[in-house]
Amino acid sequence: MKILFVLAHHEPTSLNAALVREAVGALSAAHHQVEVSDLYAMRFDPVSDRRNFTTVKDPVRLKQQAEEEYATQMQGFAPPIQAEIDKLMWSDALVLQFPLWWCSMPAILKGWVDRVFACGVAYGGGRYYSRGVFRGKRAMCSVTVGGSQAMYSSRGAYGPVDRMLFPVHHGILHFVGYTVVDPFVVYSPSKMKDEQRNEQLRSFRARMLNLDKAPSLPDLDLAEYDGLVLKPTAADSQGCQQ
Amino acid sequence: MKILFVLAHHEPTSLNAALVREAVGALSAAHHQVEVSDLYAMRFDPVSDRRNFTTVKDPVRLKQQAEEEYATQMQGFAPPIQAEIDKLMWSDALVLQFPLWWCSMPAILKGWVDRVFACGVAYGGGRYYSRGVFRGKRAMCSVTVGGSQAMYSSRGAYGPVDRMLFPVHHGILHFVGYTVVDPFVVYSPSKMKDEQRNEQLRSFRARMLNLDKAPSLPDLDLAEYDGLVLKPTAADSQGCQQ
Repeated sequence: MKILFVLAHHEPTSLNAALVREAVGALSAAHHQVEVSDLYAMRFDPVSDRRNFTTVKDPVRLKQQAEEEYATQMQGFAPPIQAEIDKLMWSDALVLQFPLWWCSMPAILKGWVDRVFACGVAYGGGRYYSRGVFRGKRAMCSVTVGGSQAMYSSRGAYGPVDRMLFPVHHGILHFVGYTVVDPFVVYSPSKMKDEQRNEQLRSFRARMLNLDKAPSLPDLDLAEYDGLVLKPTAADSQGCQQ
Repeated sequence: MKILFVLAHHEPTSLNAALVREAVGALSAAHHQVEVSDLYAMRFDPVSDRRNFTTVKDPVRLKQQAEEEYATQMQGFAPPIQAEIDKLMWSDALVLQFPLWWCSMPAILKGWVDRVFACGVAYGGGRYYSRGVFRGKRAMCSVTVGGSQAMYSSRGAYGPVDRMLFPVHHGILHFVGYTVVDPFVVYSPSKMKDEQRNEQLRSFRARMLNLDKAPSLPDLDLAEYDGLVLKPTAADSQGCQQ
C-alpha cells in the first residue's frame, strides 16, 4: 500500500504529529510505502488564486476552474502544487490528520484541498463519486477534538462529529471517488494521561495496518442519479395522498 | 446598524464582489455604517500559529488557545489580527461572503475565523451559544455555489446546502452567540444572464436592508444543557418500552 498523510498541526509534540509518526513507523516496518506532507513544517501557502499556476489562460478575468483545466493540459501548475498532486496521484490511500478547528479543517489543510484537488486533475469531465478519479482508493480523516464524546453526540450541543465532517467526507473525499473510511477520532487529548495517549497511538496503528478492512461510509452510486439529482423511483410515480 | 462584510473572492468582477458593492451602496445610502474586509485584496494570511501574536506565554510548546488567552490579557495580537478583531467587535452584524469551495469556506476565510475568533476574545469562560460574546447580534453567510438548486436539495447528490453550511452556522457563528440568519444562496452564477444577475443583486440589497427581520435558524438554549450535553427530560426518566 502507498499511503499519503497530510498533517495540519503547528506543534511537533502534538498528538496529531505523534499519531502520524506512529503510523509511519508501523506501516514502514510492514513494508508499506509512506509519504507525509507536514503542511506547517513545509510552510504550505493555503491561498488559492493565480499563484497556483505558471500558465495563464485568461489574463483579464480569473476563473479558477478554467485556469486549473488549462494548467492540467499545459503542465502549468506551480512547483509546490505539482509536488502535492504527484504525491496524491501516487498514493493508494489518503489520510488527513488534523485538529478539528471550528468544526472543520484548519485553513492550511482546507487550502491544500482548494489548491491541489484541481479541476482536470481530481475531477472534471463527469468524473465524480462512483465515477471519480480516486475510485477504488481509500481516504480517512484522523481528527483530534477539544470537547468530549458526549458533547459530540446526538445529545451534545455540537452534535455528532460525523455531521461536522460531512462536508469533508461527502463534499471532498467521496466526491473525488474515494471510499471514505470511518474517521479516527480522539476526544479531549489535552486531558489525557500518558497511558491513555499511548492507547490511542496503539489503536491508530492497528487502524492503519488494517485500513483495507476498516468500515466505510455508504457510497453514492451515480447510476441512481441523473445530472446529480436522484432519478424518480417507482414509489415516486405512484403519487401520495398527502 | 454597523455591518462588517468579510469577502473571500479573488476576482473583483465576480458576483461575490458585486454583491458586497451593491449592499455597501444601499446600506450607506440608508445611513448604516459599513466595513469591508476584502481578504484577497488585503492579502490576508490565513495560517494560524505564533504569527498571530506579539506575545509569548510558553516558548517551548505552542498551545494555541492558551496563547490566545494570554494575548487577550496582554494586548498581544499581531496588528493584522487586532485590526480584524476591532472591526468584529465594532459591528452589530457580520456577513461572510464567499463562493462555496469544496462544500465549505475558501481557506482564506477559514483562516480569518481560525485567527480572529480567538479564545478570550470571541469565546471562553463559559461564553458560547445563548451566553455567547455576540449574543443579540446577527450573522449571515452569503454564498455562491457552482451547482444547481436541485443538486443541493434532498434529492441532490450534494444534499441540502444547509447541511454543508452546518459547521459554519452551528459550529462557528451560533457558537459565539450570533443569531444566524438564513443564508443568501445564489446557484450557478456563471450560467446567469445580466438580467438574472441583476435580480440577485436587488434581492441581496433587500435582504441586507431588512436583515433585522430576516428569518433565522433555531437557537440552542444553554439552559437545556449541562456541560454542553442535553439535560435528561421527564420523558427520558419515564423509561421506554422500546
